[in-house]
Amino acid sequence: MSRAEPIPRSKENDYSPEQATRRREFVAAKTGASLDTIASYTIDPELTRGNVENFIGTVQMPLGLAGPLRINGEHAQGDFYVPLATTEGTLVASYSRGMRVISQCGGVRTTVVKHSMQRAPVFLLEDALQAREFGDWLISEFEAIRAAAESTTRSGKLVEIEQYPVANMLYTRFCYTTGDAAGQNMTGNATFAACEWIKSRHPLHPDYILSGAIDTDKKHSMMNMIRTRGKRVIAEFTLNREVAREVLRIDTANLYRYRQIAAVGAIQSGSAYSGAHSANGIAALFIATGQDEANVAESHAGITYGQLLDNGDYYWSVTLPAVICATYGGGTGLPTQRECLDMLGCYGAGKADKFAEIVAAVVLAGDVSLTSAILAGDWVTSHEALGRNR
Amino acid sequence: MSRAEPIPRSKENDYSPEQATRRREFVAAKTGASLDTIASYTIDPELTRGNVENFIGTVQMPLGLAGPLRINGEHAQGDFYVPLATTEGTLVASYSRGMRVISQCGGVRTTVVKHSMQRAPVFLLEDALQAREFGDWLISEFEAIRAAAESTTRSGKLVEIEQYPVANMLYTRFCYTTGDAAGQNMTGNATFAACEWIKSRHPLHPDYILSGAIDTDKKHSMMNMIRTRGKRVIAEFTLNREVAREVLRIDTANLYRYRQIAAVGAIQSGSAYSGAHSANGIAALFIATGQDEANVAESHAGITYGQLLDNGDYYWSVTLPAVICATYGGGTGLPTQRECLDMLGCYGAGKADKFAEIVAAVVLAGDVSLTSAILAGDWVTSHEALGRNR
Amino acid sequence: MSRAEPIPRSKENDYSPEQATRRREFVAAKTGASLDTIASYTIDPELTRGNVENFIGTVQMPLGLAGPLRINGEHAQGDFYVPLATTEGTLVASYSRGMRVISQCGGVRTTVVKHSMQRAPVFLLEDALQAREFGDWLISEFEAIRAAAESTTRSGKLVEIEQYPVANMLYTRFCYTTGDAAGQNMTGNATFAACEWIKSRHPLHPDYILSGAIDTDKKHSMMNMIRTRGKRVIAEFTLNREVAREVLRIDTANLYRYRQIAAVGAIQSGSAYSGAHSANGIAALFIATGQDEANVAESHAGITYGQLLDNGDYYWSVTLPAVICATYGGGTGLPTQRECLDMLGCYGAGKADKFAEIVAAVVLAGDVSLTSAILAGDWVTSHEALGRNR
Amino acid sequence: MSRAEPIPRSKENDYSPEQATRRREFVAAKTGASLDTIASYTIDPELTRGNVENFIGTVQMPLGLAGPLRINGEHAQGDFYVPLATTEGTLVASYSRGMRVISQCGGVRTTVVKHSMQRAPVFLLEDALQAREFGDWLISEFEAIRAAAESTTRSGKLVEIEQYPVANMLYTRFCYTTGDAAGQNMTGNATFAACEWIKSRHPLHPDYILSGAIDTDKKHSMMNMIRTRGKRVIAEFTLNREVAREVLRIDTANLYRYRQIAAVGAIQSGSAYSGAHSANGIAALFIATGQDEANVAESHAGITYGQLLDNGDYYWSVTLPAVICATYGGGTGLPTQRECLDMLGCYGAGKADKFAEIVAAVVLAGDVSLTSAILAGDWVTSHEALGRNR
Repeated sequence: MSRAEPIPRSKENDYSPEQATRRREFVAAKTGASLDTIASYTIDPELTRGNVENFIGTVQMPLGLAGPLRINGEHAQGDFYVPLATTEGTLVASYSRGMRVISQCGGVRTTVVKHSMQRAPVFLLEDALQAREFGDWLISEFEAIRAAAESTTRSGKLVEIEQYPVANMLYTRFCYTTGDAAGQNMTGNATFAACEWIKSRHPLHPDYILSGAIDTDKKHSMMNMIRTRGKRVIAEFTLNREVAREVLRIDTANLYRYRQIAAVGAIQSGSAYSGAHSANGIAALFIATGQDEANVAESHAGITYGQLLDNGDYYWSVTLPAVICATYGGGTGLPTQRECLDMLGCYGAGKADKFAEIVAAVVLAGDVSLTSAILAGDWVTSHEALGRNR
Repeated sequence: MSRAEPIPRSKENDYSPEQATRRREFVAAKTGASLDTIASYTIDPELTRGNVENFIGTVQMPLGLAGPLRINGEHAQGDFYVPLATTEGTLVASYSRGMRVISQCGGVRTTVVKHSMQRAPVFLLEDALQAREFGDWLISEFEAIRAAAESTTRSGKLVEIEQYPVANMLYTRFCYTTGDAAGQNMTGNATFAACEWIKSRHPLHPDYILSGAIDTDKKHSMMNMIRTRGKRVIAEFTLNREVAREVLRIDTANLYRYRQIAAVGAIQSGSAYSGAHSANGIAALFIATGQDEANVAESHAGITYGQLLDNGDYYWSVTLPAVICATYGGGTGLPTQRECLDMLGCYGAGKADKFAEIVAAVVLAGDVSLTSAILAGDWVTSHEALGRNR
Repeated sequence: MSRAEPIPRSKENDYSPEQATRRREFVAAKTGASLDTIASYTIDPELTRGNVENFIGTVQMPLGLAGPLRINGEHAQGDFYVPLATTEGTLVASYSRGMRVISQCGGVRTTVVKHSMQRAPVFLLEDALQAREFGDWLISEFEAIRAAAESTTRSGKLVEIEQYPVANMLYTRFCYTTGDAAGQNMTGNATFAACEWIKSRHPLHPDYILSGAIDTDKKHSMMNMIRTRGKRVIAEFTLNREVAREVLRIDTANLYRYRQIAAVGAIQSGSAYSGAHSANGIAALFIATGQDEANVAESHAGITYGQLLDNGDYYWSVTLPAVICATYGGGTGLPTQRECLDMLGCYGAGKADKFAEIVAAVVLAGDVSLTSAILAGDWVTSHEALGRNR
Repeated sequence: MSRAEPIPRSKENDYSPEQATRRREFVAAKTGASLDTIASYTIDPELTRGNVENFIGTVQMPLGLAGPLRINGEHAQGDFYVPLATTEGTLVASYSRGMRVISQCGGVRTTVVKHSMQRAPVFLLEDALQAREFGDWLISEFEAIRAAAESTTRSGKLVEIEQYPVANMLYTRFCYTTGDAAGQNMTGNATFAACEWIKSRHPLHPDYILSGAIDTDKKHSMMNMIRTRGKRVIAEFTLNREVAREVLRIDTANLYRYRQIAAVGAIQSGSAYSGAHSANGIAALFIATGQDEANVAESHAGITYGQLLDNGDYYWSVTLPAVICATYGGGTGLPTQRECLDMLGCYGAGKADKFAEIVAAVVLAGDVSLTSAILAGDWVTSHEALGRNR
């Protein structure tokens, strides 16, 4: 079997425009593809060091503006115009509609109720009893383990080591707060340091693997749903009955009735999200703002809860148990992404909770719009009008 | 309460550069953000009609090239260079490493084993008996319902109406094949037409809601895991024991042992994916190629399965039950995105299965690399070297 | 290591009173336990042949009578007095209360909406493509496979072979209707015959294992929840607002409100049953009537759904997707168990659907009572009064 | 609508033989059933006070003896003969076979690794922020809340209050150790007292409902799987390769291979138990020993984990995260049930962990037997020989 040619790389400087060109020409020659628009990037490739390897250009994602969205959060306060990067027609229009309705009703309250980012090593013992006793030792040595973990990071704090014994192993979740970073790397480094400390100090010097797969990084899981991963965030507002009737053309009593039907659907199907569509807004906002886009997998999980109030208004909330986001590090510093964060006043230190609140508020807006469209029968027709490309 | 100012829009032509500028200036004035790089897009805004509303520019996602990846699929055959759009350092390098190892072992076999895209209306009846009888009627009238549904689409085919009776309702899944489109809109239109036909023809003229929430659109679910959504795709290869030892620095027997440990972790945590990290590669490939990026939620679900062979080689596979992808429509025709599809020979008609096979192959490559890094202890250190941005 | 003494057995006749006595004396000598009441059984041990091995006597489960429960089902019609075998104080009283309330409201409608009992062999192929093609062959040969399966049984009918391809394997579910038997053995025999036929006739003579673990026999699963195992049964009634207020001391509007809260709890916890407590009634009824008591695992799964009606009454339903029950074979013919079935008019041929309807009706009654007790604050106190033993 | 006649009850003494007779005659008259064997009970009805209401007699469950089973646990040590009450033919024989194999391999190690029984009130607040702050208050007042809870019980200890904020509510799990009782009532009473204390002392006097449905009492749930309910127990042993070959007629390498296949089946189906059949043994042992038989729903959950050792032996374990059992209170004191506990040396104070260890050991024995039967092809035929009743 002949080997295909490797991708050209430069040991001196792989992030130059010349290297990008060289690779584009290579792959164009191999595949016959024209790569002109990928080549017409306007950011400095050097800036992508730490974000990508084998850089060949950029993908230009259309960016739309949604809003205004009034948020009365702990950290996010005011009227927000939200940048959404998407290729799905009607998405921006639909979220924007939801945002305006929420704003018309006085805005959305948002609250981050828990912080917990994990790396989840598994320790391998002789038998279950030894694993249990090892677990007791972890508890008794927690302060020293914490010191070992935190020696690797300025902003990460080890809060708890959850224990899940199975067979002759101890699965753990090392749970951190991570400041303004999403924290996957930070918690990886810190937990590695902690595990090395544990391995050297515990009399049995137990073997471990840095991930026992209950982290559950870049994956939806019931573990995240129950225990939180990243931030657990709640957005809530009261939909005014008249606004519902006039703007959304739905009756709040029907909306409440549909909530039962959709909750049953979520239970019947074992769905990760019991509302209408969290992933659309999260993906679009994450791409716009330089979040790790794979975290849509975890972040889209959630629970919708509503109550019809005595006056006919409708209390509407979403609870997102696993929002992974950052306002620092990763892709947040790339030029276009940083500008999107700036639009939200969310770039840099001390902004992560504010950003997480905006995420939840956006999700709620999207559900207001789509749920209403389903009930009012607008759904199919609006896609016809706005969303049919070529 | 004063209202925040609405986003400027033009009724004549909202997709002109002038309108984009007008909105950028508006939001810059409101937020103080500088939006220079967002403004330096090089695609024609008119092309984004049908993909976004309130266009203000583009986000430039760094694009890296991974590969070569040898695929011996039904539809994808040859050595592929894979464009990945990401901001996560090490991702391209890691997937590329996995691809080279797979290629060195002779390549990956890929197979699409099922097609099934849904819209899931719920029908509201008087009681469970009536709902059951209504379900029998749906079966007896299937051909006419199919004709009604297919009257709205050239490429969509209604294959089956799954029935899930709960209480006095009949939850259904209308399952289609959708050609080269992902098919969310197509199946929405077709199912709407079918439901209207049903409502007018059935003696009870039953009320229905176009989504009973078991679709489960843009959401991970056990329903998708069990019944398929979009395409069910399998990638498999045999990891040579020597290659594992020399290139990945792992022993296949340990790899097999770790498979048990990670499977237990997946079960303990109720994880949507039992391998290492499907979402990373899927998100990066989806963004590069103009897929609906929110479908990472569904598409990242999957099952990893391995067996140690008698000769010490290791059979390794991933099964992805809910890959949602398209090579036509949506964002696939946008300039940079189309170029990425062209690199894979996947733009346009008749290419969707080929693309789905590449998705599964990429996921497998990413798992080969990350799983090995976890076992070889490289994981934390490679992130330190490549992935630390600012 | 010395071996402990084996349990005495007789090759000639192991079901004689003498053998029972011999074994009791053996175990009494080994453990010092007095076994007088176990010995004071009044059934003929010979009758337990086929139900138990190493017979040493009987456990006497207290049997209480609940009801009357008015059922307006397809098969169960009339006022039923329900035998419940339990050791849990308040259980009979609580179910009985729920039954009387339901009866007072006109009774419960019950409907069996699907029959599907499984054995789930997995077939082992070379690769995914071969597995897919093997799956196509199963479809094309269905009639012959059905004939092979049905050659082993008078009442079992093979309805469908569901296919779940993973890796290089084809997981299947052979789905049957099983008449008045629960059907685990029947489907096992029939599927074994079918698999042997398949193995001998298919050109590849594929290896198979009779259970690939997706049956999922004696286990709760989302597979059962979605696809049904045994019988899918629905019970529904309308709780009169005045009855709720006067008898249950609850307001139906609060009941409806609590439904949202409990549904959220079910989603948050990933619960197999979204109502109050199906397992209590099912276990007690199953033990009384000679059902396989382990099937509580599957049968307790379910979905509760309610709606507040315009007049303030409350529509209340339970949907049980995996009721496994029999009125023939297994333990149903044992003397006390058969008398319990006779009390319900459910012994013997043609009664299984009737019995399944009663199961669902009983579950609903239990939920009416417990849910109301939780809301009215009676819960703790009634347990104090009735349920505290010794 | 005419009302059906109520069941006869006596206000003076409802637990007399006369009352039982009166009710039997009543229901016999209503239904035409003969109730002779139900009437031929030999226990004193008075003893069932606190276990059942409307007593009419007993169901006689056949009791078989399995074993011997060598257990090398922390609490259970020695060779056990295990009473199993069942109507399912082959069950006792199959478990007995597994027990002998385990004993031949030196016995099973058993360990209780966690205790945690719950009642799960939900507190209703104005908004998510208030709920979060209320949660902080619960933490700060934990000692006082514990005192309030523990004032109601001698043996229950409040260990932790887990918090799960959703919407404007705080779902909690009050987690206890409960000594030798299963503890459902104990934790109900204690949590009620704690909630009343909280409601009276917190400035907002928040409304609460004693169950927010995440307990999850008598229901399987991922919450139980992850967080434990009752006792988390592990049983493990090493299957000798020669014993496997000679007694079970299987090869341990095939057994290991099948483990992967069955684990994939469990993941594909979303199964509550990843081994062969925990519920059979648990149900039979629970009924024999007076456990709450509905707890099979929770207790059957579990994870099987195996590893092929270098010498060809096979490490085999089951982890049961939600074993609910008691050696005191409930049905444990009934005459036949107590005798069964006595056979195991498990009646009364200080025996609950011992009993839980036996439960796990029995489950493992059942899996050894059934899994081997599936692999050796004995499964169908043994049911034919032993399990076919009438």
